[in-house]
Amino acid sequence: MAEAHLKSGLERRSGIALWRQIADAIRAGIGSGLGDEDGRLPPEVQLAEEFGVNRHTVRAAISALVNDGVLQAHQGRGTFIVEPERLTYPISKRTRFSTGLESQTQAITGHFISSEHVAAKPEVAKALKLEIGAEVICMQTLRKGDGIPLVRSTAWFDAKRFPDLAERYQENLSITRSFKACGLDDYVRQSTVIEAHHASIRDSDMLNLSPGALILVLKAINTDLDGVPVEYSKGRYSADRVKLQIESSDF
Amino acid sequence: MAEAHLKSGLERRSGIALWRQIADAIRAGIGSGLGDEDGRLPPEVQLAEEFGVNRHTVRAAISALVNDGVLQAHQGRGTFIVEPERLTYPISKRTRFSTGLESQTQAITGHFISSEHVAAKPEVAKALKLEIGAEVICMQTLRKGDGIPLVRSTAWFDAKRFPDLAERYQENLSITRSFKACGLDDYVRQSTVIEAHHASIRDSDMLNLSPGALILVLKAINTDLDGVPVEYSKGRYSADRVKLQIESSDF
Repeated sequence: MAEAHLKSGLERRSGIALWRQIADAIRAGIGSGLGDEDGRLPPEVQLAEEFGVNRHTVRAAISALVNDGVLQAHQGRGTFIVEPERLTYPISKRTRFSTGLESQTQAITGHFISSEHVAAKPEVAKALKLEIGAEVICMQTLRKGDGIPLVRSTAWFDAKRFPDLAERYQENLSITRSFKACGLDDYVRQSTVIEAHHASIRDSDMLNLSPGALILVLKAINTDLDGVPVEYSKGRYSADRVKLQIESSDF
Repeated sequence: MAEAHLKSGLERRSGIALWRQIADAIRAGIGSGLGDEDGRLPPEVQLAEEFGVNRHTVRAAISALVNDGVLQAHQGRGTFIVEPERLTYPISKRTRFSTGLESQTQAITGHFISSEHVAAKPEVAKALKLEIGAEVICMQTLRKGDGIPLVRSTAWFDAKRFPDLAERYQENLSITRSFKACGLDDYVRQSTVIEAHHASIRDSDMLNLSPGALILVLKAINTDLDGVPVEYSKGRYSADRVKLQIESSDF
């Protein structure tokens, strides 16, 4: 399937050098599952056949991608797709985002994007155990590790209980410290749902991702120590930059 | 970015109807983040402008995708990308795959693909706390829900402790029952690492996925009740068919 897909894109009279078209097609094909279990590309001769071009053209394309850092050539073993290094975000009952990642980076920084008071839609109301239509604060934030965007989040809070939460976040740039400033000293993770999605255009813009990038979506409910929900959040993590880890002993 | 990507693919003299090319480009664009936060497509007039075609052509393309079940038109609200229904796989200390999903399906079935005795590579040896090169059983399986492939797994077991595990699996088609047949009555999840990837060609073949599909990769270590690792597995889940859920109370 991937081969048919790749071949169909070539245009011999398009004015773009054929090797560049092959390079783009290989790059797209990496996303579509070109490469075997170990990330090894098919041999040049096979790629040349699949694309209907000669080996020199394929070689020029691969050479360009090695230069871009997308591929790595290993003498005698073939050409491999380079797996990105990922930070490990531990999902546990008590870990906060910054604590979980701080040993792996120089600095985790929080960034306030926007906040508004809105009426809770059914999904948010259910998660926060509020009436549909209750006033909630909806806050957008971005978190970076050493300046690289890792996750953009939308989080909802009961506006009655935490009326100044967004203002406190703008001072503290940390949910934990903002809760403390609002009188909530501790909270725990109750549930997390994890899905994988393609990056939306807004994800690509805010997280500085390439087309075709993947996102891990985490929908999480945090509660106070009495089990009352205090935060419902949807975090959209760059899947190239972050992986998740769950240790039974952390719960 | 998505727009430039979409437009560049059109070939007016290719012999494929322009509306069909637009439909394919929209389908690809859905993956690349066409559609807003709610999954709504840009208006017809905007799509027509982006593709450089007239509105009738865009309308024919959208109509075909609505027919395919990829899009849904909501009177007065626009055209929306249809989110697939996903089964929820609960990740907890004790849930087994079949138990976790059985209330959501008619039947969860296990399928044996292959097994071999191999020397443990460093990653496997570390996970199972064996010497590098120790003999391990490497078993490939596939699990389906109501006949639809959900996950393909590669799992490694200490061949000394569980010499007949693959044979027992072929009889039982369940890891839990195979462990029991090998004298291990209970085991627990120790750790799970979660990543998102594009489907490989082998994923697409085995899980019957379309090009561009996404995979949730789970690397998990299970131990006996003394904390000795008994299984290291890499499961590749269709992200369109399965989402993960973590409840603190389940640990």
